[in-house]
Amino acid sequence: MMKNYILLNENAIYYECGFSCDNVIYFKLENDAFYITDARYTIEAKEFAKNCSVIESSNLIEDAKIILKKNKIKRLIFDPNDFKLSFYQKLKKNLKTEFIPKENFSKLKRIIKSDEEIKLLKKASKIGKSGFKELANFIKVNGSKQSENFLHFKAIEKLSSFGNYDLSFDPIVAINKNAAKPHALPTNKKLKLNDILLVDAGVKYKRYCSDRTCTSSVDFENFSFKREQIFKKRKYQKIYDIVLKAQLEAISKARSGMKASKVDKIARDYITKAGYGKYFVHSTGHGVGLDIHEFPNINSKSEVIIEDNMVFTIEPGIYLPNEFGVRIEDSVVMENGRAIIL
Amino acid sequence: MMKNYILLNENAIYYECGFSCDNVIYFKLENDAFYITDARYTIEAKEFAKNCSVIESSNLIEDAKIILKKNKIKRLIFDPNDFKLSFYQKLKKNLKTEFIPKENFSKLKRIIKSDEEIKLLKKASKIGKSGFKELANFIKVNGSKQSENFLHFKAIEKLSSFGNYDLSFDPIVAINKNAAKPHALPTNKKLKLNDILLVDAGVKYKRYCSDRTCTSSVDFENFSFKREQIFKKRKYQKIYDIVLKAQLEAISKARSGMKASKVDKIARDYITKAGYGKYFVHSTGHGVGLDIHEFPNINSKSEVIIEDNMVFTIEPGIYLPNEFGVRIEDSVVMENGRAIIL
Repeated sequence: MMKNYILLNENAIYYECGFSCDNVIYFKLENDAFYITDARYTIEAKEFAKNCSVIESSNLIEDAKIILKKNKIKRLIFDPNDFKLSFYQKLKKNLKTEFIPKENFSKLKRIIKSDEEIKLLKKASKIGKSGFKELANFIKVNGSKQSENFLHFKAIEKLSSFGNYDLSFDPIVAINKNAAKPHALPTNKKLKLNDILLVDAGVKYKRYCSDRTCTSSVDFENFSFKREQIFKKRKYQKIYDIVLKAQLEAISKARSGMKASKVDKIARDYITKAGYGKYFVHSTGHGVGLDIHEFPNINSKSEVIIEDNMVFTIEPGIYLPNEFGVRIEDSVVMENGRAIIL
Repeated sequence: MMKNYILLNENAIYYECGFSCDNVIYFKLENDAFYITDARYTIEAKEFAKNCSVIESSNLIEDAKIILKKNKIKRLIFDPNDFKLSFYQKLKKNLKTEFIPKENFSKLKRIIKSDEEIKLLKKASKIGKSGFKELANFIKVNGSKQSENFLHFKAIEKLSSFGNYDLSFDPIVAINKNAAKPHALPTNKKLKLNDILLVDAGVKYKRYCSDRTCTSSVDFENFSFKREQIFKKRKYQKIYDIVLKAQLEAISKARSGMKASKVDKIARDYITKAGYGKYFVHSTGHGVGLDIHEFPNINSKSEVIIEDNMVFTIEPGIYLPNEFGVRIEDSVVMENGRAIIL
């Protein structure tokens, strides 16, 4: 029963009413919803925020208190992950309302995507893929001796299509041993023939995120972000093939009705049997939607049952410290019981 | 007396020990300091974090509790603005330590910059200015009919020097009536002859921020971000000249020993006397350092006394809704009692 709740997170509020901004308190109360924001945003809020009253405020917390008092709200659900302590203390002060913490309650609501949301996620993935293609074309012609910093900038340029799209997150561009760090920051290291290059990037389309990671052999003539990669170094090829097989297994065997932990286990078992289990240091995937990290978590502990219309990543990896790393990631949607790559 | 305190903010921790990362709890206790982080960061932390013990942890909150218990810490200062409610509740649970909230205590420590910090801030401003120059050169040759989105991307490209520098914040690039919004987001609006263009951007050098805003007349042949601007539209020129005069007055009359509110008043009075006081909708400036917004605040209420080695922006503006906006901003350092533009 979620009769009365408060939201502060932009994506959570957008999901509720179709509009958001960076200074808003949103209430869903028994019979009403309120969108409290400042004068900069009220005109657009009145136009786009659906099924709620827009309140223009120069002191959001005070006006929020007034609404809670006026509506005699006894219990209010909130997400403690979205609340700064200072905000919480100011809001609670002198109020009789009991605040009920429920972590991630908005993300839990969003775990099953609507058909309309899946369309947007597919479109985001399509735009993301064409950005990867543009980046590959750049690397083919001009990639030699470029630094990770510069290639990171080029990833932003190509994925965002020169600023036309927002990115889902700051891209990861990592060469050789930097790719052994799952969240590497770019450096001045330069790209050269026969290196291994990892790129993890995504874009937003109408606020919905794409997310993809490619690991590639640096053969400038034939450079691509395709699955088929031929490495000169045998060890690169060996590890790449293990990760690729693990990923394809997880994608092809994932089923609606299966526990999320089972999807993780499929990828993890393959890598473990190949002898590299301890180098697969993160979970197999995560939900994707308005936020880049949503539910379901695809990890060894997740009891969530996979269902049709869930969207999540499948991204096993092997990271050999001080040598190199491989991660291969696609976002998938569950359709008719099976995982389809977006 | 700040005997025992906890820090979570990356810049606050960097200021303390010369190193930071995105997953750390830092304690300064009576005789010791502790840098608790996970395995990804311990090697670098041990190399770069000064005057503290680095603790490798797979559960930072639990290890933080152990340290507080072992050291029998009775009172611990913290900044409630840096604490998520969920983190605070987990950390406090089953601890006898009393948590003493002190908002912004780290920023207050950082209000006077060292000579070394001022050198870095000067260097950041120099890099920022050369980025503005590169952007002006681009606009001269190729700016016509480019969208705000694209120019925003070009601002990132030029300021960051193709990814070599991090930006202080997401740049603002706004044409005509979009410039009337102090925090405009870029749109598809295209740049054309005789427009008015506002660009607010900065870069980081060794983590220290630059911050500058230029408003320019779009005369492609002579385009520049210099102070001297000649507008075809008389109203643009009139408002521009008022803002420029207000800014120069505030810079030339600011003195060490003066209240920050007085610096605000100098700029605000000039604009008010010219008849546009109600369109100067924000404060005159803010401190700049590791964070883009530090102390002192330069606003009508700030009782802070300006001192040598403070660094802050002076950025009056006039915003005429649905028409256009002008803001002119420089970062200054107080030296020998006067404000010097960085």
